[in-house]
Amino acid sequence: MCGIVGIVGHSHVNQAIYDALTVLQHRGQDAAGIVTCDGDRLFLRKDNGMVRDVFRNRHMRRLVGNMGIGHVRYPTAGSSSSAEAQPFYVNSPYGITLAHNGNLTNSEALAEHIFRADLRHINTTSDSEVLLNVFAHELQLRGKLQPEPDDIFDAVAAVHRRVEGAYAVVAMITGYGILAFRDPHGIRPVCFGKKDTEQGPEYMVASESVALSSLGFHLERDLEPGEAVYITADGQMHTRQCADNPQLSPCIFEHVYLARPDSIMDDISVYKARLRMGEKLAEKVEREWPDHDIDVVIPIPDTSRTSALQMANRLNVKYREGFIKNRYIGRTFIMPGQQMRRKSVRQKLNAIELEFSGKNVLLVDDSIVRGTTCHEIIQMAREAGARKVYFASAAPAVQFPNVYGIDMPAADELIAHDRSVEEVCRIIGADRLIYQDLEDLVSACKEGNSRITEFDCSVFNGVYLAGNIDQDYLQNLEQRRNDLAKSAREQARALAENEVIDLHNSN
Amino acid sequence: MCGIVGIVGHSHVNQAIYDALTVLQHRGQDAAGIVTCDGDRLFLRKDNGMVRDVFRNRHMRRLVGNMGIGHVRYPTAGSSSSAEAQPFYVNSPYGITLAHNGNLTNSEALAEHIFRADLRHINTTSDSEVLLNVFAHELQLRGKLQPEPDDIFDAVAAVHRRVEGAYAVVAMITGYGILAFRDPHGIRPVCFGKKDTEQGPEYMVASESVALSSLGFHLERDLEPGEAVYITADGQMHTRQCADNPQLSPCIFEHVYLARPDSIMDDISVYKARLRMGEKLAEKVEREWPDHDIDVVIPIPDTSRTSALQMANRLNVKYREGFIKNRYIGRTFIMPGQQMRRKSVRQKLNAIELEFSGKNVLLVDDSIVRGTTCHEIIQMAREAGARKVYFASAAPAVQFPNVYGIDMPAADELIAHDRSVEEVCRIIGADRLIYQDLEDLVSACKEGNSRITEFDCSVFNGVYLAGNIDQDYLQNLEQRRNDLAKSAREQARALAENEVIDLHNSN
Amino acid sequence: MCGIVGIVGHSHVNQAIYDALTVLQHRGQDAAGIVTCDGDRLFLRKDNGMVRDVFRNRHMRRLVGNMGIGHVRYPTAGSSSSAEAQPFYVNSPYGITLAHNGNLTNSEALAEHIFRADLRHINTTSDSEVLLNVFAHELQLRGKLQPEPDDIFDAVAAVHRRVEGAYAVVAMITGYGILAFRDPHGIRPVCFGKKDTEQGPEYMVASESVALSSLGFHLERDLEPGEAVYITADGQMHTRQCADNPQLSPCIFEHVYLARPDSIMDDISVYKARLRMGEKLAEKVEREWPDHDIDVVIPIPDTSRTSALQMANRLNVKYREGFIKNRYIGRTFIMPGQQMRRKSVRQKLNAIELEFSGKNVLLVDDSIVRGTTCHEIIQMAREAGARKVYFASAAPAVQFPNVYGIDMPAADELIAHDRSVEEVCRIIGADRLIYQDLEDLVSACKEGNSRITEFDCSVFNGVYLAGNIDQDYLQNLEQRRNDLAKSAREQARALAENEVIDLHNSN
Amino acid sequence: MCGIVGIVGHSHVNQAIYDALTVLQHRGQDAAGIVTCDGDRLFLRKDNGMVRDVFRNRHMRRLVGNMGIGHVRYPTAGSSSSAEAQPFYVNSPYGITLAHNGNLTNSEALAEHIFRADLRHINTTSDSEVLLNVFAHELQLRGKLQPEPDDIFDAVAAVHRRVEGAYAVVAMITGYGILAFRDPHGIRPVCFGKKDTEQGPEYMVASESVALSSLGFHLERDLEPGEAVYITADGQMHTRQCADNPQLSPCIFEHVYLARPDSIMDDISVYKARLRMGEKLAEKVEREWPDHDIDVVIPIPDTSRTSALQMANRLNVKYREGFIKNRYIGRTFIMPGQQMRRKSVRQKLNAIELEFSGKNVLLVDDSIVRGTTCHEIIQMAREAGARKVYFASAAPAVQFPNVYGIDMPAADELIAHDRSVEEVCRIIGADRLIYQDLEDLVSACKEGNSRITEFDCSVFNGVYLAGNIDQDYLQNLEQRRNDLAKSAREQARALAENEVIDLHNSN
Repeated sequence: MCGIVGIVGHSHVNQAIYDALTVLQHRGQDAAGIVTCDGDRLFLRKDNGMVRDVFRNRHMRRLVGNMGIGHVRYPTAGSSSSAEAQPFYVNSPYGITLAHNGNLTNSEALAEHIFRADLRHINTTSDSEVLLNVFAHELQLRGKLQPEPDDIFDAVAAVHRRVEGAYAVVAMITGYGILAFRDPHGIRPVCFGKKDTEQGPEYMVASESVALSSLGFHLERDLEPGEAVYITADGQMHTRQCADNPQLSPCIFEHVYLARPDSIMDDISVYKARLRMGEKLAEKVEREWPDHDIDVVIPIPDTSRTSALQMANRLNVKYREGFIKNRYIGRTFIMPGQQMRRKSVRQKLNAIELEFSGKNVLLVDDSIVRGTTCHEIIQMAREAGARKVYFASAAPAVQFPNVYGIDMPAADELIAHDRSVEEVCRIIGADRLIYQDLEDLVSACKEGNSRITEFDCSVFNGVYLAGNIDQDYLQNLEQRRNDLAKSAREQARALAENEVIDLHNSN
Repeated sequence: MCGIVGIVGHSHVNQAIYDALTVLQHRGQDAAGIVTCDGDRLFLRKDNGMVRDVFRNRHMRRLVGNMGIGHVRYPTAGSSSSAEAQPFYVNSPYGITLAHNGNLTNSEALAEHIFRADLRHINTTSDSEVLLNVFAHELQLRGKLQPEPDDIFDAVAAVHRRVEGAYAVVAMITGYGILAFRDPHGIRPVCFGKKDTEQGPEYMVASESVALSSLGFHLERDLEPGEAVYITADGQMHTRQCADNPQLSPCIFEHVYLARPDSIMDDISVYKARLRMGEKLAEKVEREWPDHDIDVVIPIPDTSRTSALQMANRLNVKYREGFIKNRYIGRTFIMPGQQMRRKSVRQKLNAIELEFSGKNVLLVDDSIVRGTTCHEIIQMAREAGARKVYFASAAPAVQFPNVYGIDMPAADELIAHDRSVEEVCRIIGADRLIYQDLEDLVSACKEGNSRITEFDCSVFNGVYLAGNIDQDYLQNLEQRRNDLAKSAREQARALAENEVIDLHNSN
Repeated sequence: MCGIVGIVGHSHVNQAIYDALTVLQHRGQDAAGIVTCDGDRLFLRKDNGMVRDVFRNRHMRRLVGNMGIGHVRYPTAGSSSSAEAQPFYVNSPYGITLAHNGNLTNSEALAEHIFRADLRHINTTSDSEVLLNVFAHELQLRGKLQPEPDDIFDAVAAVHRRVEGAYAVVAMITGYGILAFRDPHGIRPVCFGKKDTEQGPEYMVASESVALSSLGFHLERDLEPGEAVYITADGQMHTRQCADNPQLSPCIFEHVYLARPDSIMDDISVYKARLRMGEKLAEKVEREWPDHDIDVVIPIPDTSRTSALQMANRLNVKYREGFIKNRYIGRTFIMPGQQMRRKSVRQKLNAIELEFSGKNVLLVDDSIVRGTTCHEIIQMAREAGARKVYFASAAPAVQFPNVYGIDMPAADELIAHDRSVEEVCRIIGADRLIYQDLEDLVSACKEGNSRITEFDCSVFNGVYLAGNIDQDYLQNLEQRRNDLAKSAREQARALAENEVIDLHNSN
Repeated sequence: MCGIVGIVGHSHVNQAIYDALTVLQHRGQDAAGIVTCDGDRLFLRKDNGMVRDVFRNRHMRRLVGNMGIGHVRYPTAGSSSSAEAQPFYVNSPYGITLAHNGNLTNSEALAEHIFRADLRHINTTSDSEVLLNVFAHELQLRGKLQPEPDDIFDAVAAVHRRVEGAYAVVAMITGYGILAFRDPHGIRPVCFGKKDTEQGPEYMVASESVALSSLGFHLERDLEPGEAVYITADGQMHTRQCADNPQLSPCIFEHVYLARPDSIMDDISVYKARLRMGEKLAEKVEREWPDHDIDVVIPIPDTSRTSALQMANRLNVKYREGFIKNRYIGRTFIMPGQQMRRKSVRQKLNAIELEFSGKNVLLVDDSIVRGTTCHEIIQMAREAGARKVYFASAAPAVQFPNVYGIDMPAADELIAHDRSVEEVCRIIGADRLIYQDLEDLVSACKEGNSRITEFDCSVFNGVYLAGNIDQDYLQNLEQRRNDLAKSAREQARALAENEVIDLHNSN
């Protein structure tokens, strides 16, 4: 998961893009980048780290220009070096910069082909660099000295035909304009908005509507699946459907966990969807466990508070914030001769005994992935004096890996993979475990926009709508994602300690 | 307000102090420091910034030793240069390092005297450096090659006689042990705890109990007002009452806003105190406004959520989290030729329209200080469609400056200073404003520990229990704290941009 | 003036390139960069600063691979931002990195054409980025999946036809090999050498032979004008003459000042050439001033020591090092409210009075450019007690600007521009001024290699052999180079203080 | 060896101290520091590194005030951590900062005593911290609120009585003035000078006179052995002899190698002394080897050039600079899995074959310490074609360790320790080896100032004039200095990579 943003304005856009990236920071805290365009010059700053750390005064002063794009990265398949921070750049044609959210499922084949067909060198394992080069290649084929909107859109259409997977993209054609497009299934979100100023309208595209509203932009709408929007440097907006068979099936996990509650995605209020998840979950409890003895509903902060509150309301049970979150997380340092210690959940959460002591508590979380955190939290609840500890997940059991850009563990690390609810309940140590039913989750979301006929629910049901996801693909993925590999990468990264060796072109 | 911590352990204490400082980070995000002692060697790292930014691997590796103290700083009276990050050090006698939370009200006179009596050079405007030198001077007078607990306590007693104001202190005598003491009114908090290990007990002192519990230490108790605790390097704990007329009157603002809800202070659960504040506030509404037409109670996150939830429960009105807090706050950069823009509340909070639209909302905050934020939030609520916007403050009107270590503005910047409730209500633009009554606030806190007969409520009632606070003192303070001075300091600081010029002794 | 280096080896080449860059550091201290190639991955580090400051352990650790190129930059026409540090990179075709020494005199027209013909975006004002794109374009036209040596050489031939000016280039074709080529006049130097190892031969190209010898490489020879050498990643060396009418006319200023004395350039020992310059100068003195009353010959360190010693020998006059050079030059800082002070020569040189007191001294420098330094030095000599101060320049009067990559001031800042020897003598305050005759300088150099029929002596005679240098061009140059522009750039740079905003692609 | 400087001026002294430190940089490139005093505030910046690297704009801006002291460090006995960069500070009495050049031979006993007598904590192994505390203790005993010059001088007198070894010291009494003093044998140099300005005289003390003259100060004179000079903040200069039996016996190695040639030390011109060394050496050759067949004299740059030139003149043999020094020395990086490689002399020097080929060369160096470099250089001369390679040392054989502040290796690493001239000649591989005779060296220096009756020549003759240097002391030293220990320290330091953990007090 990542966050993207692009703005065409009438004055320097650096601060606005920076502010938008902080609003989208929850979508990726691993790296951040901004590139701006002033005339035919590009100015770029990107590095590993959070937005507030990556951009200093000295960087902002140089990020001049009235249009630009930005990115926050959450590492997906691929390494996490700062060299793979986005946006990426190619100088031919025009000088194109690009940032994307999602994951291409045929990235390796594309990279191979890009080199063979166009001699384009790909220097990282990032699928974003591949995507950029595919797009650049297609645009170059048109060979225009000054690309018209239809040249741009034709190139996007060609990208749709070659690229598989999920992708929400923002790109900038140096000197010409900013482009955004969304994959033909609309799996990853991207919307656009407008702000009227005395110099004329300014346009903005972003992963979530909350970035628009925070910056005073009016949400026009989400991009349709397969659609592209192109705003020229002088403020003309163009849109075109560029896919042959677009079909909206947005990622349902955005509503479960990823998105901010104050965003509207594909006309669904994330906040309302979560309220409804709480309600449906309460109904399931009432239905399947009418004589429950729950004394208090306690959310695992922060995401599940919305669902948990509504669940408590509906169950007519007291709602209490029994866990306090430590908002300032530190690191665990390795002293010479020591081994890495695991950061315990106890450093992130603290239980208020009063709310647990002698009570039957229902803990509510948005979802259960690995289950290790659950286990610790349930332990804490018991130590705080809880009599019974029930656990509810506002989402169904996560059983399958994600291939569309969410950094989830390999299948065999998912606690619910190949396990029954009872088994999971036993492993996490709860007295009872309630999962949301998938159809309830879908209807909780769909109630916000009945035009959506299908969601990407692949992590729950293993149905992969986009790309050619077969057993081979998943096994390959499994290999790459297994924890050993990850820890190796993290060690390497610890060594590198934030150091960057870039292949910078200029400016 | 600041946070302090000290640990005497059986292995390196750097990580534990670091973790404790992150738990106390809410008490000060301006600067952080740790000093450890290994044999007769000290290792120190301090700088401006948050804990996660100040301490890097390279620093932690050098912070060796089984005892140490730490500090997070919230700037009070005095500048905010990194040179004034704590702990401070003097090499005579023994090598003493010290960190403190509070404010000395006779700091200038002491500094003068310290130089005249002992020729001790004070190089900053920090009262902590003064306090350290007073203590060092008193301890040196005893002239022991190896100080006994009673030498230490005698020096603390002398400090109590000379120093005025509020102070919770942790200090380390190089090679000998760690000391903590609390002013004779116990205005600022400090507690201590113990953890049993195979090598024997480890001891920890901290500003708040949550730091103890997070690190697996068992809370023994708060220090009594005037009391000192001294733990020798080999793990012997000693305590002594060092003040002549100790009288517990802790700062009530800790319960209103400063402390974490999961802390226990002077045997009062902050969380419970806040629940009771909500309840008392609800009672006041019922009492004074029985026919209220409140549709929903909405907290201003984060502190007021506890009170607001209980207030809603008691009023039997719906509780909803209508404001979403942006957790990743960025900076506003100044481009050449631009003026500093004010960071708007809108970048910190976002209203979910659904919860406001067409409703009479009661917004609840922990307190109202300048009132500017209130005003903006009420605006936001109206723009989100609220019909009526009522505002409740879980604390009484803040009318007087704080002289005991809380960084509050000068009196004439306090919105409630010399203004009636109606006037404040009009200025912030609310349809109705409800302040907690002071006696209700006091009883909400006192219910947790009936042995406390008095709180420091000076910001509410102008009664200054400690020090010799007269009109002159307050006017002088006013001068220093007025916004102009502050902005000048902040400009200077912006210039310095985190740069440190230290007077380091060694190691 | 810049320094370039490229190595194809059998193990990591990072240290060797780093060492070579320190040996070439005298050719440019403004910026440094290295790019290495490991398989099909590139690793790059470049920044403003000297070699020892730009490359840290963390950078070197990542610069893996058995081939790579490096660069040290002396700023010429163009800005001095770190974004313009070299090598530059384009990803299409193959991923090409390039570094160069020299100056293209038709850079702007090329940049324009490159965009029109190939839609290639140029993001800096550096002619190196232009040169890289011209070459990349020409190579791409060949369209080979795997480029053969002749494809490479054909592209170089096309570059020669399009590009005007002086250029010595090293480039790396990712995964394939390293290329070096020299402009058809051979104005700027570049040579190559070989080292036999157990794994087979390793090859190295460099601006000066001293870089080869320092690293244990055997100097094969200088590149012919217009020639290219291409060493494949597996160690096969290929050369080809790629220019239509190559004509060797190397820059004579390399021998006067730029090159290290221990280098051999176009078969001329720079050291010997300088000895001969001293001899010719002595002959001129004997010829034109037979009854001279010179007591002692004193060089202005460091370059002129070689000539001065030989001059003294020939004149049979005592040689003494009367000036001591301060080897550790500091900066002049600007305190708030102060103006920039000029760094005086007195901070760089110190006169030993003994050697001046009561004597007629002949000061010898390699050349006189602006004359301001001369003036100060002559002052110092007089203050140290010299009776008469004569001044000799081992080079003729510098009267014309350089357009081939040496950072010289605009014509009207050259003290000898439009002035007689007598006028210059008066302005610098000498009692007598002796310039080398141009024909003597040429013959001093030519004696080393009689096959050279012509040198680029443009700064002395205004004859520009390469490019289409007319009055317009020179006036335009004048404009750009005038001191005002320069100081403006330097101010901007001081502001930026080493900060980099790069357009990095990856890795 | 270190360099010290102190200035009392009429405007900010930061730039002047900085400039002076660059002039003294040859005395220590390991660390640098400046502390300035503005009113009663101190501002300090110190760190490992060269002057140009330690002081940035941001530091200089804060180093305000009209008096200050500075230091460059060459590591002697003790570690090389940045925490031991000087100046050091103690806050009691007055706030004293101090920097010193030299070595205390009873440092450990003093440190012990300082703690017992005065409870003063010493946090490093630096003898400078000890010296500072001894002085502070003595000054505090006087107990004056405002110290008079005689109080200061009395304290210095007490220091002389307690401290053994060699020391040239500069110290600043916060708010009061700057003090310099020299040990009773005057082993290490320190001089002072004056500059008349419109606001009255400014005073400066420095290790070498060249720092004075470079900054426009007029050299008054060297401090007498045991003498102290005290300049008050308002510009009054006071001097007093503070030792009981002062006896000037300055370190002769200053003239051999340490000092800059353009310095005057104890009225001896270093430059002239070196000319005389060359002359005496020539005389010895003529005396002992009248039929020598030397074709050319070649200095090992840089120090020996002065002696070598005069030697050649006297021998009437050609003088040629056959070795070119690489002025930009880089580092050797350790790649993972590699071992540290030795930096070869070949990276520092390059031979010009022309000057060696077929000739009998006499190489001249200032001295021979370990001999390893000699060996390599002689090798290079042979490879460059020399027929015979003779080697002359302008100093006698270095046979004994230095205990007065010069960082020389342990005795058993000195090539001449317990070896005859013939043995040394054989080991370094020369065809003949000529050492200066000690009496010649002494007379070469003494001719400059006949009042000096004795020099410290301990490294040549093993006679230690100051301190109680017995076999135990030397063996202990041997232990500490042996290469193993050194390499361990260097490894540790490489790890720490310039990282500082300081014990800063303030500002």
